[in-house]
Amino acid sequence: MSDNGHQNVTMITCTAPVNIAVIKYWGKRDEELILPINSSLSVTLHQDQLKTTTTIACSKSFQEDRIWLNGKEEDIRHPRLQSCLREIRRLARKRRNSGSPTSDVTSVSHKVHICSVNNFPTAAGLASSAAGYACLVYTLSQLFGVDGELSVVARQGSGSACRSLYGGFVQWKMGERSNGTDSVAEQVAPESHWPELRVLILVVSAEQKSVGSTSGMHTSVKTSDLLTYRADAVVPSRMEEMIGAIRQRNFAAFGELTMKDSNQFHATCLDTYPPIFYLNNISHKIISLVHRYNQHYGEIRVAYTFDAGPNAVIYTLQEHLPEFLQVVCHFFPPEVNGGEFLKGHPVHSSPLSEELKRAINLEPTAKGIRYIISTKVGPGPCVVEDPDLHLLGADGLPKKNA
Amino acid sequence: MSDNGHQNVTMITCTAPVNIAVIKYWGKRDEELILPINSSLSVTLHQDQLKTTTTIACSKSFQEDRIWLNGKEEDIRHPRLQSCLREIRRLARKRRNSGSPTSDVTSVSHKVHICSVNNFPTAAGLASSAAGYACLVYTLSQLFGVDGELSVVARQGSGSACRSLYGGFVQWKMGERSNGTDSVAEQVAPESHWPELRVLILVVSAEQKSVGSTSGMHTSVKTSDLLTYRADAVVPSRMEEMIGAIRQRNFAAFGELTMKDSNQFHATCLDTYPPIFYLNNISHKIISLVHRYNQHYGEIRVAYTFDAGPNAVIYTLQEHLPEFLQVVCHFFPPEVNGGEFLKGHPVHSSPLSEELKRAINLEPTAKGIRYIISTKVGPGPCVVEDPDLHLLGADGLPKKNA
Repeated sequence: MSDNGHQNVTMITCTAPVNIAVIKYWGKRDEELILPINSSLSVTLHQDQLKTTTTIACSKSFQEDRIWLNGKEEDIRHPRLQSCLREIRRLARKRRNSGSPTSDVTSVSHKVHICSVNNFPTAAGLASSAAGYACLVYTLSQLFGVDGELSVVARQGSGSACRSLYGGFVQWKMGERSNGTDSVAEQVAPESHWPELRVLILVVSAEQKSVGSTSGMHTSVKTSDLLTYRADAVVPSRMEEMIGAIRQRNFAAFGELTMKDSNQFHATCLDTYPPIFYLNNISHKIISLVHRYNQHYGEIRVAYTFDAGPNAVIYTLQEHLPEFLQVVCHFFPPEVNGGEFLKGHPVHSSPLSEELKRAINLEPTAKGIRYIISTKVGPGPCVVEDPDLHLLGADGLPKKNA
Repeated sequence: MSDNGHQNVTMITCTAPVNIAVIKYWGKRDEELILPINSSLSVTLHQDQLKTTTTIACSKSFQEDRIWLNGKEEDIRHPRLQSCLREIRRLARKRRNSGSPTSDVTSVSHKVHICSVNNFPTAAGLASSAAGYACLVYTLSQLFGVDGELSVVARQGSGSACRSLYGGFVQWKMGERSNGTDSVAEQVAPESHWPELRVLILVVSAEQKSVGSTSGMHTSVKTSDLLTYRADAVVPSRMEEMIGAIRQRNFAAFGELTMKDSNQFHATCLDTYPPIFYLNNISHKIISLVHRYNQHYGEIRVAYTFDAGPNAVIYTLQEHLPEFLQVVCHFFPPEVNGGEFLKGHPVHSSPLSEELKRAINLEPTAKGIRYIISTKVGPGPCVVEDPDLHLLGADGLPKKNA
């Protein structure tokens, strides 16, 4: 933390990761507190490829709370943003009043300036709100010296944000209490637990914008009988099964359950009235491709999952990654002069056998996939120590390039 | 019935209709007897547009049972065909042994020649097996003078065939007995009950062939938790609700439940492992179009349903048909020189307001729909009296043009 001289600006910068659920969260039992109708489980992706960076400054001289997202000032009065600010300040006051010796001197009553950027295009359709709210809450907690149950605060920004507060494999326990104090995230296994696990994000060309997840899940809870059944009768045993598969590093069990749960989530979207479609023809083809690939080898080597949009997230093991990537490039030939097709973590080249191509037996679809991000499991939020990396200047306003 | 002279060939010709379910059948509890996991309900379509015609001849001189479908001889040993032949002959013997005075003289031990044609292209992806098996069983029953519970026999050819044995609105009660004797079709209301009801079949351009319904539902029963729940907990009350809506001619209730049940059926297909997709991007667009059209008027004027393929079946009332047809033609402009776009029952032309086009606000998709069949509710199977219309000649072989 740095104290920037004459203006008495205290400033801190942190980063937080994106997470991709393998047991899906869809539906709230309390819209205000963001309490889910079922527990969920996710993999935290590595921040080298996907992260949010947030700088928060605090000063007696600031007139009001302000926020800049990806270079543009946004309305600080957004209810969910206000929930997070209010909750963190409440925890900070509680901590100060209890006279905790480590409590920070930064005044809770000072206004804050928040500046946040993603290192990936928002247009990619990757849920950026989880990383964004996790980063906001984590950075605020560092600024105010709060170290309580942050996942309860982040959850009130965006439900899945609570899972971005930890690295590795993270469950969000739905909890039972009506005040939500037991609806918390918890690490199932750290990022070092399964070093061979690899992730590809296939960014799919979409014709139209999908229904937002907040309104989508609201309609699903109101109208889908199948969603209620899923939450009550299917997810509890899947959570146990998934935790077991991860602890044992059993890819076949992990992959099959990941695919089944993605499909069931999209099934409940279709059972919603009016129905919600997130998967398009390209998504369907990716699903066929994965099943045919696994079928050819007689084992599950690759698994897909889809969130509230047509992009696929692929989980596989390091040993299968080069070949599967070649398969994707063969059946979804990239646009010529379309820019870099594979971004992120490099992947070794691998030959592709004619036998495998014949076994998969799909018509190639040019330009169906815009680009691919290669990444792996990663750690939770981090403090950025280098003051040069602050997104706000000494005056508390965004730097030119932030 | 005609007795064709020197060869002693007895011959009869009948027609049977297609039916489109509004409460869907998906999943068997007994694969052999074709007993369903839930009851279902359908609308019988008019035979002026869609029908199967079957001629069956019977003679002591025939050496073996034979069958010709749409001009091509097929293998008579097909197990489901054998089930129908065996069951009808069993009923005929039972009837003769009981000495019923009306029982026919035609010998049950004689071999049969079966010739069957559809008046619609098989390539349209309309489930032709229901009309086909209903027509086979009805014609056999006429030939052998059997008038027992034919739906039990037709059900063993193709489950949904039992519903094509009646006109109007027909339920297939799932039954409880393990021998299937109470798994029967029953008319809910005759074809004259709701004269304003209209049907449009939107034949959609499909890239690839869908998974067949027999193997699809087999995999669904084995793998989808949601399908089990649907059959046990959702369908029973929907059947009651649908019967009530039909009896009261309540289009809003009929339409909403039809759409919800179609969506839930496709949801259980997605919850199947590996998942089954019958709806494509065009199907999704038709669904959006219908919801936006209804939304614009603040009431349900049009409803969609989809079977095991991408084609939409639209139910609406006569008063709304011309406008809705114009809407479809505007948002799915036909292929130029693509042949007749609207087939079947003529529809009056109607202007289309700019306001409505704006309200729907979808990007038109050229060539998404290949053609449209306009039809309405119709009667059950009929005997064709005119001997010139037999598909088999006096020699018991298909006529040249059959």
